[in-house]
Amino acid sequence: MAGYAFSDRSRTLMQGYTDIIDAELNRLKKNAAENEFCRSSIAEAMWYSLSAGGKRIRPVLVLEFCRVCGGDFKDALPAACAMEMVHTFSLIHDDLPCMDNDDMRRGKPSCHKAYGEDIALLAGDALLNLAYGLICGCGLQDGVKLALIKELSEAVGLNGMIGGQVIDTAYKGKMTEDMLLDMYGMKTGALLKASCKIGCIAANADKTRIEAAEAYAEKLGLAFQIIDDILDITGDEKLLGKPVGSDGESGKRTYAAVNGIAKSRETAAGLTEEALSELDKFEDNGFLKELTAYLLKRDY
Amino acid sequence: MAGYAFSDRSRTLMQGYTDIIDAELNRLKKNAAENEFCRSSIAEAMWYSLSAGGKRIRPVLVLEFCRVCGGDFKDALPAACAMEMVHTFSLIHDDLPCMDNDDMRRGKPSCHKAYGEDIALLAGDALLNLAYGLICGCGLQDGVKLALIKELSEAVGLNGMIGGQVIDTAYKGKMTEDMLLDMYGMKTGALLKASCKIGCIAANADKTRIEAAEAYAEKLGLAFQIIDDILDITGDEKLLGKPVGSDGESGKRTYAAVNGIAKSRETAAGLTEEALSELDKFEDNGFLKELTAYLLKRDY
Repeated sequence: MAGYAFSDRSRTLMQGYTDIIDAELNRLKKNAAENEFCRSSIAEAMWYSLSAGGKRIRPVLVLEFCRVCGGDFKDALPAACAMEMVHTFSLIHDDLPCMDNDDMRRGKPSCHKAYGEDIALLAGDALLNLAYGLICGCGLQDGVKLALIKELSEAVGLNGMIGGQVIDTAYKGKMTEDMLLDMYGMKTGALLKASCKIGCIAANADKTRIEAAEAYAEKLGLAFQIIDDILDITGDEKLLGKPVGSDGESGKRTYAAVNGIAKSRETAAGLTEEALSELDKFEDNGFLKELTAYLLKRDY
Repeated sequence: MAGYAFSDRSRTLMQGYTDIIDAELNRLKKNAAENEFCRSSIAEAMWYSLSAGGKRIRPVLVLEFCRVCGGDFKDALPAACAMEMVHTFSLIHDDLPCMDNDDMRRGKPSCHKAYGEDIALLAGDALLNLAYGLICGCGLQDGVKLALIKELSEAVGLNGMIGGQVIDTAYKGKMTEDMLLDMYGMKTGALLKASCKIGCIAANADKTRIEAAEAYAEKLGLAFQIIDDILDITGDEKLLGKPVGSDGESGKRTYAAVNGIAKSRETAAGLTEEALSELDKFEDNGFLKELTAYLLKRDY
């Protein structure tokens, strides 16, 4: 992502986190399917999309919020991988012909283009399902694991990501600004919020910190989505990894399309400052602040 | 289902179970979505399929195995509803055009025919997700809830239902008898097995009973699938609730198609006796034996 350079310490942390996440995801692949045919078809499709160049934002947020709340981030690694799986499940299903019908994702053929619609559908299903299995099997205390599963289920369900997707799908071109913001909060924000909260909960953090993480994630998610909207109008296809104007062509109205580039830039900048100020409630917040800048201080 | 008449006691138990399951599913619908649009679209689609005349076999097995293992079946009600949701999720996704492309299900338009492909896809996703939320939020002990979630995740995943579906989808017309039986065990058997085990685990049953429930469910699932195959060749569309020969037309080979009606009848009858004999390991097994007969002693 152009426009932001990490400090040495943050670059090291980011690299360390993504390395450990990728290693764990690779390890999980080996045990995913007993049946040889399933290993060479659906498991390949799941890990094709899991390895398609995602920035690992959600799992990194899990691990770093766990760490800044005083936990051992390794304890949260299965939950972190689970969040990446849920995110990937949502991308695979969103790309299907009956949804956004996107042939490309992060500069590569989308899952159904590479493996067929049937396998892509089932790969998405299997990723969501595996996410629950992972959290259930991790080494945290029983009560903590159940709290994480509750967060995940609420974030994914009708009042979270899937609900947001339904509103987005149904109201193409007909959303007011308020409805758009609600939809963004559900479709994109809920999973980011769950990632930050799950990191805190895995570290047995107190309510104040969990609420601060939640407020941070709301601002982050909204700003990120609005910046994506702006870049969808103004951006470079190579940087975006999908065709510019793809949301517009399918008749969808975005925040930037409704409110114009100038107002959208102002809103995004304001939300960025609010997100950064929520992080002041955490000690040792340097990496989180840099990560936020990396995500939000893009060339928009 | 023609051919079997319950005793008065079993009819009363069956009716009591299905009433309490339906009442709980209806209650859950009210709280499923905060957003009004989601309530009137995806939630309608989810409950359309949940209410489409399914026989509630899986949730009834959960409740009755809980009862015969000495538990209070009401404790297992959320898990029972979760199993029905997972079953319904699988039917909705299996019916989609990119899978079996079935326009009808249980004599009614399938979910995507009634609500569109996009909503049906998301309704399936949301049912799987809600199943985990339900178990997580039920009143059982933490360790028991996690054991149920583990069972569910394994039953649904690549070594269970989804894996079986992948093999079924990929090997149309090319399966050997052994592969067919493996596929049946995964695609149909895994969720039935999980239902029986979940009932036992909810009642804190010992290992011997859990293993007996597992063995019972394996025989039940295989026999049920083979009988379905036979009826798909010989049966009455009205009784079956889907077009006769629908599996054959799409080029799929079934156990009955591969082995012929006579051998299939013999295999199904043998499995039925084995399933019934596993139930001898449980006291007060009258209803389970009658339920097994109701499911398997059909006009095939």
